[in-house]
Order: sequence, then C-alpha cells, then structure tokens
Amino acid sequence: MSDRTPGQNAELALLLEVTGTPKPGNVDRERDFSDLRFEHFMAGAVGARPGLELAADERVGHAFERSVAGMADQSAGNTQFGALLLLAPLVAAASDGDMTPSGADRVARRTTVADAADFYRAFEHVDVAVGDPPEGMEPLDVHRGSEAIPTLEARDLTLFDIMARSADADGIAAEWTGKFQRTFAAAEAILDDDGSVPDRASRAFVELLAEERDTFVVTRNGPDAAAEVQRRAQAVLDGEEDATELAEELVARDINPGTTADLVAGALFVALERGLVV
Amino acid sequence: MSDRTPGQNAELALLLEVTGTPKPGNVDRERDFSDLRFEHFMAGAVGARPGLELAADERVGHAFERSVAGMADQSAGNTQFGALLLLAPLVAAASDGDMTPSGADRVARRTTVADAADFYRAFEHVDVAVGDPPEGMEPLDVHRGSEAIPTLEARDLTLFDIMARSADADGIAAEWTGKFQRTFAAAEAILDDDGSVPDRASRAFVELLAEERDTFVVTRNGPDAAAEVQRRAQAVLDGEEDATELAEELVARDINPGTTADLVAGALFVALERGLVV
Repeated sequence: MSDRTPGQNAELALLLEVTGTPKPGNVDRERDFSDLRFEHFMAGAVGARPGLELAADERVGHAFERSVAGMADQSAGNTQFGALLLLAPLVAAASDGDMTPSGADRVARRTTVADAADFYRAFEHVDVAVGDPPEGMEPLDVHRGSEAIPTLEARDLTLFDIMARSADADGIAAEWTGKFQRTFAAAEAILDDDGSVPDRASRAFVELLAEERDTFVVTRNGPDAAAEVQRRAQAVLDGEEDATELAEELVARDINPGTTADLVAGALFVALERGLVV
Repeated sequence: MSDRTPGQNAELALLLEVTGTPKPGNVDRERDFSDLRFEHFMAGAVGARPGLELAADERVGHAFERSVAGMADQSAGNTQFGALLLLAPLVAAASDGDMTPSGADRVARRTTVADAADFYRAFEHVDVAVGDPPEGMEPLDVHRGSEAIPTLEARDLTLFDIMARSADADGIAAEWTGKFQRTFAAAEAILDDDGSVPDRASRAFVELLAEERDTFVVTRNGPDAAAEVQRRAQAVLDGEEDATELAEELVARDINPGTTADLVAGALFVALERGLVV
C-alpha cells in the first residue's frame, strides 16, 4: 500500500480524474474548454489539498469550505466544487479508518448546523452553476451564501438535511444521502478493471454517464440534453458510438457532465484508499 | 498573488512541467513512454510535496531526501529526481523570503556534510540514471547510497562540494554551483511570455534545449545524441523543424532530455513565486 495520506489520495484522485480520456463533455488530458483548461484543474487540486486534509480532524463542512477556498486560487473559477463536496466526507471516513459506505454515511449523518453554514459560505468563493431553489426555499438559496445562515439556524438544518432537500436535483447530494452507493460501486469497478488508472477512469465515467442522467447537464442544458447524453453514453458502451467523437461533440456544444466527473473523482479516491496502484 | 505556500507552488510546478506540450523527448500531456506515464508524474508530484515543504524549516538535504522518498511512492520509479534536487534549495530560498539567485546561492552554500549524507541516502529510494564516477571517486559513487557517508564525513564534504564535483557532468549540479542562472533566466522568459502556462513551459523547454546539451541525454544516449538534440531544438526555434514531430521521434528513439525538463520545473516554480497566474 502507498504511504499517501487520505488528503494526498484525494488530491491525486482529482488529478487522475482530469487525466482520464476520453471523458465525453469534460476537460481531460486531450480536451479543454476555452476558458477552463487542464492546468486550472491542477492548480485547483493543489489548492484544495490543505482543506481536504482538515477533514481528518475537523468538521467536514469546514474542511469542505477551506478546500473550495483553496481550489478557487486559480483564474478559471469553479473547477472541482462538486468533487470536493463528495471527497470531504470520504476523506473523513478514511481518516476514521472506515472506508465503507456505512463509514461515509456515518460522517454524513453526524454533520451539524455549523457544517451547513460552512457549506453556504463555500458558495462565496466561486460561482457555481446551480438551479433556482424550489418555491418556499428562497431563503435557503445557495446563491445567498452566508446570508442564509440565520435561516439554517432558525430551522435547525444540518448539512445532511440540506443534502436531503437537494438529492432529487443533484447527483452529489444523492450520494450524501444514499450511502455513497454509486461512488463505492464505481470504485470497485475501477479496482476490478485492467490497464492504466486514467483508462479505467475513462471507462468508469462512461458507465456512470450511461447509468443516470447527469444533474449538472440537467441544470445547465436541460433535461432533454441530459437524457440524450445518457442515451449516447449507452451507445458508446454498446459499441454504436465512438467515445472520442462524442467527447469532441459535447465539448463543442458546451455540454459538460460535471457531476459524473465528480463521481469519478470520488470513486478514484475510494479505490486509491483500497489499494489501487498508480 | 496566490495564497499557495512554496511547497504547493513546487508541487504545482512539477504538474505544470509535465503538462506542457510538446516537450520533445519527454512525457508530456500528449506523450508517454511505455513504462513511464503521465499519471506517474502526478503521483510523484503529490508524493513529493510533504518533503518539499520541509525545505521551509529543515535542512535542504533532508527535505530533498524526504521528497524523493515520497516521489518514489508510485510504480514507475524515478520521475522527478533531478527536478526535486533543483526545487529543494529554491523552496528554501522562497521560504527565506529571498527568491533571487543570491538567495538560492546562499542556501546552496550553507549546506553541510549532513546534507550531503541525505543526498546519498536519496539514491536508495529510486534507480537514477547517472554515469560512473571519475577515477579516484569510486568511494563517492552515488550508487553506493548511504555506504558513501563515512567517506563524505572523513573528507568533510558538504552537499555544495558534491555538486561542485558534478557540475561539469550534470546540469542540475551546475545550477547549484552557478547561482541557478539558467533557472532564473527561464523563469523570467516564462513570465515575459504570453499564452497559457503549459504553452509557455513548452517554449521555455525548447529554448533551454537549444541553449546547452542535456546532460541526462549525454549520460544515457551519449554526447553525439545530446549534440543532435541541441541542434534540432535550435532548428525548431529557427522554424526549420516541427516541435511535435521532433517530440514523436525522440520518444520513439528513447531519447529523454530529462535535465532540461527539470530546469523547466524549477523555472516554473520561480515564476509562480514571482506572480505567474495559472
């Protein structure tokens, strides 16, 4: 086993995620968006690591907020917000010595109102593409940042509660409230796979994309685009479409299945903690 | 300015170096060797960082040895030995608040016999391609690792002394004993350049390659190959050769100007410390 700490493995997972290619619609080793490039993800990963390491000892919300602040220390804005939201509880579980779905679930369920406040503060570091809140939820719109904190406190809402309210609309929140099921399943697929780690990450990405609609695509491009992406990822698995051509097309159309990339980063972290050799 | 620590900037410099493409003969964003791939450099950079951070407070030799131990925590062996030997004193100088040639020179000249012993210990972590020692220097052959330490102590040789004995044959040792002149000059070229940071790194690489023979190529492939690489890098600068074609050819011929890549990593570090924005 490697001597890397959970914080180092989390950083390495972010770097390996962006290296895997093709990952249709995402920045990868072979593709950039014009204003969001490979090197921004590297600087984001390096900047995020000190925050991620806090998850070993401190509140997971605080670790997340600090990791986002560090990630944002590059010129392209949001690179890995969702991945960090997924990694923070996973790093905490690994540091507890319990890198299992129940270990991660325990971390998620023990979050407090203070963690929820940290989560809202994190939105002040970077512009994150999220949908408008449902009717009646305006006081808890994440765009309000720390202004939402009095409402959180008045309603006694923990970070787990906030995730539960977003689980239908956000694939990362669904992991938080669903024992990180897809993350751990993808980690096992990566461990069982052959070949280089970036190649495994690419295959895991396409499999996750075919499995469920990417919620980031739903938010930015609409449900029809998300359904199309899911269908075409399945076509890649069925040998009916070429992954690289799909990658070129989605980048050209500015369709970016970022939540699925975040899941791959989380899965790579779990796999590294379970002995994946780079 | 970024909030990254010198240790973080050193890690980021390693990541940006391997991303710059084309860098003829080296692993880069678009090229791998069969057993030495992009992801090994990422794991090497992540593993090296805790050691690099020690250079802020501890002996530079110890920081180097620890960074090499961390770098070696991946399956491909030596990825960034020379770059770490260059970065360790630069991180120390940055941590001293003196990111200048004279600041780095001061760090180099204050090394002790204990730093030299650390340097020899570092060769026990990883297999480094170095030439045989000159006649009479066999007791100080780096392949002896820590067995050479009694000789170092008997002869009262500091790490700076060891670098001075290797400066003719090794481009990194020449930096240590020459006020890191090429590193700082390349950093200024990167800062004065336009475009993305990896593109600047690629151009700095070709310029350094045309300027002097790469000592790693001399060691592994011989002086004629090194002279050819230098001449053809100049042809790229003169518009007579294509950098990408040269990159493909050198990788196919297993000619790897690794010392020049190490210089680019050092230059990127200095540039980041001086305000280069990613």
